Amino acid sequence: MTEQAYDVLAVGNAIVDVISHADEAFLAEHGMVKGSMQLIDDDAVHQIYGAMGPGFEASGGSAGNTAAGIASFGGRVAFIGKVADDQLGEVFTHDIRAAGVHFDPIAPASTGDGAGPVTARCLILVTDDAQRTMNTYLGVSGRLGPDDVDATLVASSGVVYCEGYLWDLPEAKQALVKAMDLAAAGGGKVAFTLSDSFCVDRHRAEFLELAEHKVDILFANEAELVSLYQTGSWEEAAEHVAGHCEIACLTRSEHGSVIITAAGDRISVPAAPVDQVVDTTGAGDLYAAGFLSGYTRGLDLAAAGRLGSLAAAEVISHLGARPEVSLAELAAEI
Amino acid sequence: MTEQAYDVLAVGNAIVDVISHADEAFLAEHGMVKGSMQLIDDDAVHQIYGAMGPGFEASGGSAGNTAAGIASFGGRVAFIGKVADDQLGEVFTHDIRAAGVHFDPIAPASTGDGAGPVTARCLILVTDDAQRTMNTYLGVSGRLGPDDVDATLVASSGVVYCEGYLWDLPEAKQALVKAMDLAAAGGGKVAFTLSDSFCVDRHRAEFLELAEHKVDILFANEAELVSLYQTGSWEEAAEHVAGHCEIACLTRSEHGSVIITAAGDRISVPAAPVDQVVDTTGAGDLYAAGFLSGYTRGLDLAAAGRLGSLAAAEVISHLGARPEVSLAELAAEI
Repeated sequence: MTEQAYDVLAVGNAIVDVISHADEAFLAEHGMVKGSMQLIDDDAVHQIYGAMGPGFEASGGSAGNTAAGIASFGGRVAFIGKVADDQLGEVFTHDIRAAGVHFDPIAPASTGDGAGPVTARCLILVTDDAQRTMNTYLGVSGRLGPDDVDATLVASSGVVYCEGYLWDLPEAKQALVKAMDLAAAGGGKVAFTLSDSFCVDRHRAEFLELAEHKVDILFANEAELVSLYQTGSWEEAAEHVAGHCEIACLTRSEHGSVIITAAGDRISVPAAPVDQVVDTTGAGDLYAAGFLSGYTRGLDLAAAGRLGSLAAAEVISHLGARPEVSLAELAAEI
Repeated sequence: MTEQAYDVLAVGNAIVDVISHADEAFLAEHGMVKGSMQLIDDDAVHQIYGAMGPGFEASGGSAGNTAAGIASFGGRVAFIGKVADDQLGEVFTHDIRAAGVHFDPIAPASTGDGAGPVTARCLILVTDDAQRTMNTYLGVSGRLGPDDVDATLVASSGVVYCEGYLWDLPEAKQALVKAMDLAAAGGGKVAFTLSDSFCVDRHRAEFLELAEHKVDILFANEAELVSLYQTGSWEEAAEHVAGHCEIACLTRSEHGSVIITAAGDRISVPAAPVDQVVDTTGAGDLYAAGFLSGYTRGLDLAAAGRLGSLAAAEVISHLGARPEVSLAELAAEI
């Protein structure tokens, strides 16, 4: 086995977020489901952007946020995702590298179509209740494919972390499958986030198959877990997951998280205190960052979960989905 | 005289800010003077961007911020500045329009050179003391010229507000002169901000000439005023300005502002309270927005100055140089 260069390799969409405040009426008028993520096309991105208020831009993407969080804890982390050779691609590349994440932008020529599609952006509307509603225009990010997964990078990473969002795209799905298979073959762990309850709805059978056979560490919030097992309650769903993957990290917003192991352990982790919840974007991504940071440095599951709570609390206390302070310093204070 | 469509027409650089935290050592290492603005070239923008931490992007530009502030107060305002047909240009255009400002992006073809230069960006480093240090890469914004000043727009605006920063660029300077002359000829008022003490250093003789003969309403902070008159103290400099323009709004950070009129009035306006100063970027721009909002709706100078204090206090309480809340609502609360 190759020497481990990275604790975690994260694979996901490379997205720049465009964040703005909006009211419930705006969401309704544009047919958005609050709290969800929808993929939008070229027409919709112009229509929604044209209608929304002034925004600010910050790098995002679920797995990218997790990678930035792991780096902020001091972990060694790499990211695979696809940006174009444009200004938003430059922003994404700068931000993730400046956060301390290893990232080689995949040459835009590899999309094979000249001028080609642009870097992905996600129009995020934050309502007064701090909920985020996401509208993702994937652009070149949706062109991620198996060839973009560097086998050497996978082999040199302890954990490969994949975002469920990529399952919507056939080529990107194959990229994830390749990364998962390579990780398993090389003795690495496979971590996976269900991403979004509607995403789970679209791919339930395959996600169940993944949870049972390919995933070592599963991340799911309440809606996602209930959607996966189609149960009447979260408790029932949690019973199901126990028989599946090695570790399931089940997040429950302000109620913290429950970590369930294949061995039958069930560990409850409280949420960390937050003065004011400003924007819930990235809460799950940063919980995963904290948990994986603790897990890869050999902390027990409860302690790893507490780092997850800490990172989630930091990111929901401000606008934007990546940490604004050093999570390593924050962790040292508690 | 044409009917007034706009209370204020603002003319300035169209810039997207890239904002990041930095420490004093970073400024020293890169030879930056804290609190100042320097123009940087292509090499420097890559070198500084490559070295700085993860950032977030938000539309800026001095006069653009002022325009957004006036719109936030409910004023009718237009902006002239130059963006390219690129992603940052789209961001700038979206944000200023979404703020309620009239803005027609000048066709990039008018730069006359094919692929052409990109939309301006300003790398802003915010230190722990909330001071901002700015590094501006002008790109296409520096190509603003007299042809870009629409005489009809000037004629239909009560006040033309110009930023001193443009004086660094010969063509842009001619654009300002044209806008000022058209405004004066049409019975409009000319407002001007000195922008930056180093900028005043570079153009002292011309700025003195402007203050004496072309400018009706002058905005200057302490360093700029002292630099303009080369006096040992702010008090002495304030004596000089009294004999020059019709109204001089002299800002003094936490000490508020002093408004001096040609008639010999001297009005002291306190600063508005701020819980925590986070980022001073845009303080002067938003003071000007508040003052001009009050002035154009016929408030007395003290009341107009208080709106300036209010807007400045809002913008320095968060990262980014444009208001995050409705200034009209904020003003209604006091």
